[in-house]
This record gives sequence, C-alpha cells and structure tokens, in this order.
Amino acid sequence: MNTATAPLPAAEIDPIAELRSHTQPTLRATVPALEKLLYTPISVLDHGFVRVIDYMGDDSAIVQAARVSYGRGTRKVSEDKGLINYLMRHRHSTPFEMCEIKFHIKLPIFVARQWIRHRTANVNEYSARYSILDREFYLPEPQHLAAQAKNNRQGRADVLEGAEAARVMQLLKADAMQVYDHYEEMLNESQDGTERDASRHGLARELARMNLTLNYYTQWYWKIDLQNLLHFLSLRADAHAQYEIRVYAEAMLDIVKQWVPHTYEAFADYRLGGAMFSGKGIAALKRMLAGEAVTQEQSGMSKGEWREFLTAIGREEA
Amino acid sequence: MNTATAPLPAAEIDPIAELRSHTQPTLRATVPALEKLLYTPISVLDHGFVRVIDYMGDDSAIVQAARVSYGRGTRKVSEDKGLINYLMRHRHSTPFEMCEIKFHIKLPIFVARQWIRHRTANVNEYSARYSILDREFYLPEPQHLAAQAKNNRQGRADVLEGAEAARVMQLLKADAMQVYDHYEEMLNESQDGTERDASRHGLARELARMNLTLNYYTQWYWKIDLQNLLHFLSLRADAHAQYEIRVYAEAMLDIVKQWVPHTYEAFADYRLGGAMFSGKGIAALKRMLAGEAVTQEQSGMSKGEWREFLTAIGREEA
Amino acid sequence: MNTATAPLPAAEIDPIAELRSHTQPTLRATVPALEKLLYTPISVLDHGFVRVIDYMGDDSAIVQAARVSYGRGTRKVSEDKGLINYLMRHRHSTPFEMCEIKFHIKLPIFVARQWIRHRTANVNEYSARYSILDREFYLPEPQHLAAQAKNNRQGRADVLEGAEAARVMQLLKADAMQVYDHYEEMLNESQDGTERDASRHGLARELARMNLTLNYYTQWYWKIDLQNLLHFLSLRADAHAQYEIRVYAEAMLDIVKQWVPHTYEAFADYRLGGAMFSGKGIAALKRMLAGEAVTQEQSGMSKGEWREFLTAIGREEA
Amino acid sequence: MNTATAPLPAAEIDPIAELRSHTQPTLRATVPALEKLLYTPISVLDHGFVRVIDYMGDDSAIVQAARVSYGRGTRKVSEDKGLINYLMRHRHSTPFEMCEIKFHIKLPIFVARQWIRHRTANVNEYSARYSILDREFYLPEPQHLAAQAKNNRQGRADVLEGAEAARVMQLLKADAMQVYDHYEEMLNESQDGTERDASRHGLARELARMNLTLNYYTQWYWKIDLQNLLHFLSLRADAHAQYEIRVYAEAMLDIVKQWVPHTYEAFADYRLGGAMFSGKGIAALKRMLAGEAVTQEQSGMSKGEWREFLTAIGREEA
Repeated sequence: MNTATAPLPAAEIDPIAELRSHTQPTLRATVPALEKLLYTPISVLDHGFVRVIDYMGDDSAIVQAARVSYGRGTRKVSEDKGLINYLMRHRHSTPFEMCEIKFHIKLPIFVARQWIRHRTANVNEYSARYSILDREFYLPEPQHLAAQAKNNRQGRADVLEGAEAARVMQLLKADAMQVYDHYEEMLNESQDGTERDASRHGLARELARMNLTLNYYTQWYWKIDLQNLLHFLSLRADAHAQYEIRVYAEAMLDIVKQWVPHTYEAFADYRLGGAMFSGKGIAALKRMLAGEAVTQEQSGMSKGEWREFLTAIGREEA
Repeated sequence: MNTATAPLPAAEIDPIAELRSHTQPTLRATVPALEKLLYTPISVLDHGFVRVIDYMGDDSAIVQAARVSYGRGTRKVSEDKGLINYLMRHRHSTPFEMCEIKFHIKLPIFVARQWIRHRTANVNEYSARYSILDREFYLPEPQHLAAQAKNNRQGRADVLEGAEAARVMQLLKADAMQVYDHYEEMLNESQDGTERDASRHGLARELARMNLTLNYYTQWYWKIDLQNLLHFLSLRADAHAQYEIRVYAEAMLDIVKQWVPHTYEAFADYRLGGAMFSGKGIAALKRMLAGEAVTQEQSGMSKGEWREFLTAIGREEA
Repeated sequence: MNTATAPLPAAEIDPIAELRSHTQPTLRATVPALEKLLYTPISVLDHGFVRVIDYMGDDSAIVQAARVSYGRGTRKVSEDKGLINYLMRHRHSTPFEMCEIKFHIKLPIFVARQWIRHRTANVNEYSARYSILDREFYLPEPQHLAAQAKNNRQGRADVLEGAEAARVMQLLKADAMQVYDHYEEMLNESQDGTERDASRHGLARELARMNLTLNYYTQWYWKIDLQNLLHFLSLRADAHAQYEIRVYAEAMLDIVKQWVPHTYEAFADYRLGGAMFSGKGIAALKRMLAGEAVTQEQSGMSKGEWREFLTAIGREEA
Repeated sequence: MNTATAPLPAAEIDPIAELRSHTQPTLRATVPALEKLLYTPISVLDHGFVRVIDYMGDDSAIVQAARVSYGRGTRKVSEDKGLINYLMRHRHSTPFEMCEIKFHIKLPIFVARQWIRHRTANVNEYSARYSILDREFYLPEPQHLAAQAKNNRQGRADVLEGAEAARVMQLLKADAMQVYDHYEEMLNESQDGTERDASRHGLARELARMNLTLNYYTQWYWKIDLQNLLHFLSLRADAHAQYEIRVYAEAMLDIVKQWVPHTYEAFADYRLGGAMFSGKGIAALKRMLAGEAVTQEQSGMSKGEWREFLTAIGREEA
C-alpha cells in the first residue's frame, strides 16, 4: 500500500526513542539547535526522510582551524563571523572540511543514483543482496507531474492535467505494485522472512531485486564534511536540479542553517545568491556601467551565455 | 525485443570504424597487445560490453615511477619484473597509480549501482534525464538462475529448474517489456524522438525513467588508475562477488593481462591467489608446522574464522 | 633554546583550560574513555605532540552502519564484537568510515612530508607564509642516532657512538640554531611581531622560511575517518616505518584503543599481527603442513620473498 | 655549486634521448603539438623544471564523454567548441576528468609542500630515505627578493635593495652550502655512493636529510586529470599565489594550451578572466546599472569585500 505513513518503520522506532531518551556529558563542540533535531526524521517526498545521526564541529571549529592555519596572522580579524565570510569569499575551503555530519536518508533509487555521483562522502546503503526491500515506492504528487520541456533536454514544462495525468499516475502505481508482487513471488518469501510455498526454492535476493522499478525506496547512512556538503547543496538545491533531489537538498540546507548559522549565511550570500561572470561578461559589465549599450554580438558571448548574463543582472532580452 | 544483438547500436559503429582505421605516431609508452583491443567491444552478459577507449602507461611506467621515487636506491634490483613483484608484495601502491585506463561499459543498472561504490574513478554515465533509454534489459541465462542460499545471506544455492525457472523467466521478461511499453507511452515519444500522439504532452524524461526496472542497461565511460582498478578487481573478480558483476571484472582482468603482463602476474600471485592470516592464524600455523594438532577452541578463532582458515590451507573440517 | 618544554606554548594553554572546564549535554554517541583524553597533548619526540580535538562515533556506530547496510541479514550475528571482527576480516571497510576523529599534531617538517602522502584526510597546517615559525627543532635522542644500514636502503643499523655521535649532534644543533638566527635577521622581526631594525624592510615571510631546516616543527589539524586512520597506522606503526613517524602512530594507536576497543582488538589481530601469503606461499605452506621439506628453489619464490616467508612462519634460514 | 645548469643531470639525458628517438603507431587520441613537448624539460626557477611524460585524451575526448553522458540530447550543439564552452560555464566538470596528464617536476621543497596540498593527484616523489639529495637549492633572483607586505600577511611588498638584498642573498647561499657540507659529512658518503672516511659509519639517510633547508630541490612524478589540474591552475596561476609556485603553474598553463586548446580558451574566459559576485554584489550591480550611486555602507558588504568588488568591476575607491 502506498498511503502516507510515518517515515520510519515500526521496528526502528524503539531504538531511536532509546537514543533520544538520555544525554551524555561531553567536552566536544556541541550545537544545542542541532541536538534538538538529532535522530528525528524530516519527511521528504511520500516515503522518504532525512535525519541527522551524528555531527562533529560547529562554526567555531572552522574558525579554530583557520586560526591554526594562518597562525598569528589572523589576529586582526576581530570576529568569527567576519573570518567565516572571508574564508567563503576567497574559497579557502579546508577549514570547512573540519566539520562533519552523518545522515540517515531514505530516498527513491533513481534519486540515489544521482546522489551517489558525489564521490567525496562515506556511504553504507541498505543491501538488497542481503535483505528484502520494503514495498515502498515514490509516486509524484499531481503538481509535480511535469511535461518534458521542448527547449531544454533536462527541464520540465507545464504540469500534466486531466486524463493524461490520471493515466500516468495509474501506470506508475500499477507497474510498481505488480513488479513487487512478482518480486515476492520469485523470492518465495515475505519481507518478514516467512517462506510462502515450501515446494519451491525462491530466487536469490541479489537476482530478484532486478525486477523492481527505479522509484522503489532505498536507504543509507551518508557522512560528509561540511565543505563537500555545501558543494553538493550548491548543485542540488539549485533551481536546475531535479525536483525529487532538490527537496532533499532543501531539507539539508535547513539543517545546515541550524548547525552552522554563520557558515550558512556566508554560503547563502556568496554561493546560492551569487553569480560567476566570465571575462567577456566582466568586460560587458564595465561598458554598461560606463553607460554604453552592449549587444550580444559586441559582447563576444554566445546567444546562450548572453541570455544567462542578462538574467544574472536582472535584465530580460527585448 | 530482447534477442541477442551486436553489443553496439548501429549508430555507434561508424565512428568506431573511423577511429580504428588509421594510426597516429606517438612518443608515448605504447602497448601493441592493447592497441589490438582498442575500441572493440567485448561482450558481457546478454547486451553488455566492455571496451577500452584509451590508456596511459605500461609495465615500464610503473618501474620508471618507482625508480624516480627510490632514486639510486633501486639500482640493485636488476630487472623490471623483480621490482614490480617487490612493489606488489610490499603494497607500495603509488607507482601503480601512474597507469590509467578508460573503458566504455554497458551494464544493467543493478550492476552499475554496485560498481559505482568504488569512488576513486571518473565516470560519465548516459543520462536518462536528457535522453531516452533503449529497450534493453538483462535476463539471466538458465544456468545462472540461482536459488537463495539458506546459510549465506548474499549467496546463491542450486540453480532453479523446471516450472519454477520458467515462471521466473516469464515474470522478468514480461515485467520488463511492460514497464518499457508504459515508459514510452508516458514519454509520448519513441526512442528516435518521434512524437507518438500530438494531442498529449509527454511526461518529463527525468520522471518517466522511474518506471523502468533495475535490469535495464545503462552505459558509461569509466576511467581509473591501475592501482584502484586492481583493488576493484580483487573484490569483484572474487568468487564471493555477484556473478553479474564478476563477468565484467573477468573481462577487465583479461585486458589487464594484455596491458601490463608483469603487473598482472604479480597481482595473480600476491592478491588473487594469496590469503591473509590473522595473528591467531599465524600462531596456529606455527604450531601445526611444528607437528601439533590444533583445534578451533585452542586457536582462539571463531567458528567462522576457523572454517575460513582451514579452507585457506587446503584442509576441510572433519 | 632547545631544552625540554611543555608541548604547548603558553599562549595556547588558556583556551584549552577553558574548553576542558565544562561539559555540555549531548545525544550523540559518546566515549567516556576518550573524553578523558580530549584536548590533552600527548608528548611525542622532543617538542611534538598529538591531541584529540574532536571525534564522531564509537564501536556501536560501526555496527549500526553495518546493520543498515546488511539490513535484517545481520540479525544472526548476535553480538557487536563478532560483527566487527567479521567486517575487519572480510575487509568490509565502509562501516569503519562512519567514525571520524580530529587531531591537533605538532611534528617536524620531514615527518609532515611523509605524513601528508596519505591523501584521504583533511588538513589545516600552520602557514609560514602568514606567520613566523617558532624556534623549535627536532634533535634525536642518542639512542636513535642510527647509522645507515648497508643492506637496506631505507633501514637503520647500529647506533652511532662516541665522537661520531657527538659530532652529529653538534652539527644538527648548531645548524638549526644558525638558520633560525638568520631567519629572524632576514625577517627583521621577532616572533612576537616586534620589528628589530627600523632602517630595514624585512624579507617576506614566504621567502624567509626557505632558510629553515627540515627538522623544524610545524603543526596541523588533521581529521580522518577510522578506516583511513587504520590504514595509516598499519603502514606507520609498522617496524619498517621511520622511527620519527612511528612514535606518532603509536600514540594514535593508543588513542584508537581507548576510542573503539572492539575495533582496536580486531585490527591488532587481523592487520598488525597478521600476514599476507602469496599463491606460492600458500602452496609451500600446504606442502610443509603435509610434512614435505620445501626449498626456496622449489617454492618458485625469489630469495627476498622466501626470506620474508620464513620470517612470517617463525623459521629462520639455516 | 649553485650556478645555472642544464635542468637534467647528465645521468638522465641518455634515457630521454632514447625515448625521444622513435615513435610508435597508436590508435589513441594523439595531440601533435603536445608530442613535440614530450619529455623535454621546461626550465622553471634556477634549477627546476616541468616536463610532460605522458598524456591521455584531447579536446575531443571531453566532447565524446559529454555526448555519452547527455546522449542524443547533445545533438543540437553543433560544434565541439561550443559544447566545451557550455560545460565549462555550467561547471559540468566530469567530462574534463576524462583527460589525464603526467608530469616530471623538479621543485624546491617549500614549493612542494604547498603543491602537495592538492590531494586529487598521484605522486611519486624522490625519497631522501633511500637516496641522497643533490646539492641543488633555490636562490631567488634579485627582482624577486621582496619585502614583507605590511597590510597583507601573505603578500610581498617592494623588492629589497642594496645592502639588505646583498645580505639576504649571502645568508641564504652560505647557509644552504653549509648544511649540505654537514649533510655529506654526517652521511660519510658522497652523492655517488663513495664512502668518505672508512673509520666512521655514517648517519642513516632518513635522519641526515633533516639538516637540509627548505629551498633544496626535490623531484616527483605528478599525474592528474584535467579537471583537477585546472582547479590547481586557477589557484596557483593566480596573482595571489606565491611567485615560486606561480611560475610552475604558468609553465603548465602553456602546456594545457598546446594540449587542449578549446578547453584552455574556455578556462581563460570563464575562470582566469572571470569573477564571482555575491548576492550583495549582484544587488549593488543592478542598482549601479540602473544609474544609482551605491556606497559601501548601503551595499551591506564589508570594507574588504567592497574593495574587491570595485576592483572586479574596474573602479577604484575615491
């Protein structure tokens, strides 16, 4: 059944409750705002979640590492926030690597396949060689059932409506249900390990899994340093990222905001809100600031770059 | 249709033929035996392949790097083969990183998901956000349709037979065909880009792909240095690896043999044919060599480790 | 002056005392034995130290990650210790990556140059472009003033004695003192930033540093996951490692023992105390266990490998 | 003696001449302009060099990888150059990882220490544990003997002149000569392996090296993919990089220009010649383009950022 459920299966609730029930004293850098989020799953999509399992460091740990690095040379920068801004602006990335975070994430397999392309992270994924996957698959909500954009190969256009939308939903759901029925039949085993038909053997799990569709959910532990997490977020919280991974990135962005607020603010200004201009873009800007009118042809930019340039400075082509 | 076909689609044959048609002179280290294999797809599974697209270095490049590293200190090792054996035996791994190879590989998605866990490689995968996947999926041959092992969660037991095998094959094939039919219907587009029904919009590719099963084929360019390739092969050409990835590893092992024969030989002896013994294993060995009988209890090993220990030294438990 | 001093300069003592003075409550995995070591420098060599600044995870975090990965398939392994042994024995390395540790380390530059070759770590080093290095350099204790081994290019032989030892110590010390005097003169600045001679400009720090010898101390923050730390330790706590890096590895090995005792025990048995045998070694072993006498010639091993093989099984060549 | 010499020691000239003397036919992507540079050392600083030992791929290999990745979706981009520009502009970095290059580099140790911080590369360095270093050290040319900048901790100010410059040169040279004399004395061995005084033992090489200053030359093989090389060059060919590493970066930039001219051009425009603006910078730009006067206070930027912003758009503060 694909109805909305609590994101964590019942079997996993108890251990979490236990972990959440008592604190330990520590001398390590501790972030009270993040402690409040610890272990609690944040729902993403219809069955997915993100939850923080552990973390190391805070804004001060970044400052501490930068000061070891630059030594007495950082004495002049009087406050931590200013130093973090400086590090972010000048892409001095190594101090941000001194913070680390570990997530437990449940996500559709086609999202996991995009995600794993970010190589600088540690991963332990639920193995469908060893264990049986749950009957949980992703179905888009109606407002995310987008048509293929005509002018942009990876883009979405308007939302499908009416009969076409209904047909898509019906196909996605019926196929996902059917492949799981057959998965179970081939395994000859229910997810709790009960054998179904004692007269049969059951196909090896590592083979049977191949019959599942890419919208089935998997889960993993994913551990990454802050610098690489920010890089991931700059790509995946971006408007061009696929909606189904962007919602995970946005959930993690909120977590980063609680965890390292100064870093979050610098990241929001210098990365998310910023823009890169090419040499040709800078040259065009200088002429425009001097009051000249510049055309695409004069700029030396291609049509695509020119369009992006105008968007970045808030102008639309006539 | 899922019948046996030439591994490369027709559209890709011409460019390859062109690349193969003429050589260029180079001053770089060149391996004639590998040149013969260049660009030619080696069939793996029913629709997959491995082919070498480019390579850098040879056995001498490893020796050359080691000699730069150890300087005049390597003068005594008179021949290259001995030096390569020495490097392999003592896990001096950096000289093996000086060789690089680039493959074009076509493989089922569930295999790709195992493969990508090896992070130290460069990958460009065919994107189903941008383009439409082919109707090509993996179906095991009857002799690989193994039952789930009872005593080993990731293992395979006897091959399924008769009606059960037939039923599994029928389910896998019918489901794969059906999900592709629906994929095309949702896309409202054939793989060659022809619109099917002008009255509909077609679901975005990045969404429609979620309806495909994990045995569909994807493809990628995969570039890796020799040291990391050998690590990959030591895990994936191993008897415990899933058959469907092992056949790729075996094809690449043959390529390594052509490319860097001294390294291959050292790898075969010290890694593939070798075994690691624990401190307890060494202690037991010494006692056995001195003529003592040693039992599992005396050895301090767990039952599992003891079983593996006996297998390694060619003894079976009574 | 190069006399024995407290490993931390006075200026750094206060912040540490402050950090050590009060605990915070946390819901994270916490290791009381490691909390006791937190921030406290452990002396290594004459002016160096290792101290733990932060950590993430414990033995249970490894087990937790393995159980997510293998899912219900790990239910049978009844206890955590057995599972950790299994993971270590079978080189299932990813669960060990789920723990992370951050050190502050002070070490001679020639040691730092070996150390940094381990690439899978995060580093923030004190920058001699920005700041002035302290007048602190390493001088070996008399018992470590070893002669060059004749038969082994990277080995040490007997300890130098008498006049020769005295001469070496005098040269090392006098040269180190002199290059620092000239470093300060070229900088025209004392380490506290006081200008020395107002009529001169002072050479740029990034240039003046080139006059220092490789035994000068540097310091860095070094953060690494447990899997990569164990790999580092297996190479650097080894008898073949240079003494001056081995003592750091040994100090960190003790820390690992406090931090993740089950993992430490498995590592000690399967890595530190273990040995790898080649295919030829296994073949020879089997024959020896069957009571045959095997010679180097018959074994197919080179003389070097044969010698190592005999050592591993506790036999010396006649 | 520290006089200008041919960058390669005599012993290494013959093997190079041999390698350069005959070509092999290859089916691999080949770049004639880079073949001309192969094996030839390009002088850098007084005794250093950079030379290309091997390479894999060319501009077309990047395009080929991108087309595999985006599939039929790239058909519309009619030409390779446009596609490379697009990839560079949108930071689609993985296709650039499909090219690889291997250098042999000779460089002062203090430069090597900065360089090695770029972790995503393969390195084999000459080992001073195994072998004896040459008597070759770096001395800045008079025009690079810069004073410490007062306002910028890592910067250089005016060039030292007259007596101060002469004194610095004399100190650097005399100290370097003296520490090498003592290095040889402690080793009791000349660089060619001749024992000096049969009555002494000689200190282990791994210890004696600590007496050398940081301007001594080392050498290594350094292999890196194009994407990571460009990242290295964007940091190290930058005006803020230390002169002594920048000259190496500039030499490699010229090599990149010969190797992958389209990529070089895109890199020069989008990275070297480009600039990143923060959200606050973009907001200020928009107001300025609309004819408003914007002050630092109004912009919300810090003084430092405001100064950098004005520089980027070619305005100087009043």
